[in-house]
Amino acid sequence: MTAMAARGFAALGVAAPGVAALGIDWGTSSFRAYRLDGDGGVLEARRADAGIKAIDDGDFDGAFEQLVGDWLDADPAVPVVLSGMIGSRQGWLEAPYLACPAAVADLGAALVPLDLARGRRVYLAPGLSTRDADGVPDVMRGEEVQILGAVDRLGVDRATLCLPGTHSKWARVADGRVVGFATHLTGEAFEALRRHTILGRTIDHAAWDDAAFLAGVDRSAAAGGLLHHLFGVRAAGLFGELEPATAGAFLSGLVIGHELRAEAGTLDGDAVFLIGEAGLVRLYAQALGRLGVEAREGPADAAARGLHRLAVHCREAHGT
Amino acid sequence: MTAMAARGFAALGVAAPGVAALGIDWGTSSFRAYRLDGDGGVLEARRADAGIKAIDDGDFDGAFEQLVGDWLDADPAVPVVLSGMIGSRQGWLEAPYLACPAAVADLGAALVPLDLARGRRVYLAPGLSTRDADGVPDVMRGEEVQILGAVDRLGVDRATLCLPGTHSKWARVADGRVVGFATHLTGEAFEALRRHTILGRTIDHAAWDDAAFLAGVDRSAAAGGLLHHLFGVRAAGLFGELEPATAGAFLSGLVIGHELRAEAGTLDGDAVFLIGEAGLVRLYAQALGRLGVEAREGPADAAARGLHRLAVHCREAHGT
Repeated sequence: MTAMAARGFAALGVAAPGVAALGIDWGTSSFRAYRLDGDGGVLEARRADAGIKAIDDGDFDGAFEQLVGDWLDADPAVPVVLSGMIGSRQGWLEAPYLACPAAVADLGAALVPLDLARGRRVYLAPGLSTRDADGVPDVMRGEEVQILGAVDRLGVDRATLCLPGTHSKWARVADGRVVGFATHLTGEAFEALRRHTILGRTIDHAAWDDAAFLAGVDRSAAAGGLLHHLFGVRAAGLFGELEPATAGAFLSGLVIGHELRAEAGTLDGDAVFLIGEAGLVRLYAQALGRLGVEAREGPADAAARGLHRLAVHCREAHGT
Repeated sequence: MTAMAARGFAALGVAAPGVAALGIDWGTSSFRAYRLDGDGGVLEARRADAGIKAIDDGDFDGAFEQLVGDWLDADPAVPVVLSGMIGSRQGWLEAPYLACPAAVADLGAALVPLDLARGRRVYLAPGLSTRDADGVPDVMRGEEVQILGAVDRLGVDRATLCLPGTHSKWARVADGRVVGFATHLTGEAFEALRRHTILGRTIDHAAWDDAAFLAGVDRSAAAGGLLHHLFGVRAAGLFGELEPATAGAFLSGLVIGHELRAEAGTLDGDAVFLIGEAGLVRLYAQALGRLGVEAREGPADAAARGLHRLAVHCREAHGT
């Protein structure tokens, strides 16, 4: 079945009123799907723990049918755009990285078409790449759609944004384009350190303490470097100056503090928009405040907004 | 059997000619024992993968008999001194940390006696503690004996020493005393990062490349901080700028480089004496050279020499 024929189903389908596009943010560990109206508003959202690493035998087509097949049936003629690791080498089909600077129009022009087994044509968003001052490459995939969606939603065309997480992203937007970004392995390093080093022996992983988190952020300002600060967590435990109930939060603050201090020096007094999971955004806001940096909560529907912008581009360029 | 009675065995024992002391460096993962002559020379050495974590059910006495029982039989009247994690809370008997500054005489005065099941009295060396400029504690246990042995052997009473490893130690000695030190979680963090993060996916753990190691050391000088540099290893892999055969060495150089740069700023042009496993000493010497810091190889028998110094103190204070 061709994409043309699939579009012909529009007459048969029972489209939900006002559905103008389907947007899917399909990452390594989670799947988020949105039915979007013509203004980018979210009519319906779905979330599943069906990240690409959970898909057996690379059967992304089968998984996609299971996850949103009913939406595809109901809205047969609207553009469908997918962003995130689904477009990586480990995903469904590779959508090559686009080099910064990049605006929504650049991402839109680089969408990679993919025909579902059912014949419907969908589009994969590319990731972004950049190089730091030393020429070392950096990449993102999925976050660029959230970033561009966020600035669109905020109505600004210049901003610094932080997307905390396993691989925290710091991005600069100017003139509506992502001009550069830097990734920090913060979340993943924290997990590896607390689970697979001696530090874990004196950490109660279920406990949390805000004051200890902020003490860790403060400690990250000290001389000696992260590797020395890490051993200090162990030694403070031996001396009873950190308890299992506080050591985990202290370590979290320490590692996040190192990330923030590396970025804070480049801010020129800019506020930072935080986008991500609510608990993590709260932590980063606390930590940034400790550094005297203004933190603002970014829009909650950044990914949906960015996918909407790409869908608009898609419709203009391809009809769907 | 009392220690006094045990000493009486001297007449019966067949002491090796010139054995003046037994010194044991018993760490977390290895056991090293030395038969020492009156000048601290090593008459015989033994090594076993019988670190304290390998001892079942805390039966240190039984393990000790198996490992050096014949030496105890042969030299029943010489002092026996043990250093390292064997004197920790997880070891045989805790010998509390001594605060810096500390000389050999201070360690000697703090030796903790322990009577073996066979009646022989042996002595456990304490570890050292210090606090950094922020008041955060740091500890070592075993390395202090190597450090004081090394400066004794070198005939200097002022030096900067680095003992690279799982927990790298940087120590300052002045007037024959360890005046302070700093630990970096370098080796353990490297293992956790390469085994338990996404970085491991593009590392051939069996491969090594000296040029990549030095490139990693160079990279540690860049802006952005360690957590950003770590993600760069991943991104460079994606772009084919690091191969599995070079990525592990690069990561090693990167992490070691961060340790060295944190310490290099405090050196005041001092050379650094390196003490430890030959391969690691070679790597650290290369990396320090890259930073323009003079690295010198410390004496190979530093632990034996330090144990000898403690044994001399032991004999003077306790008879054995």
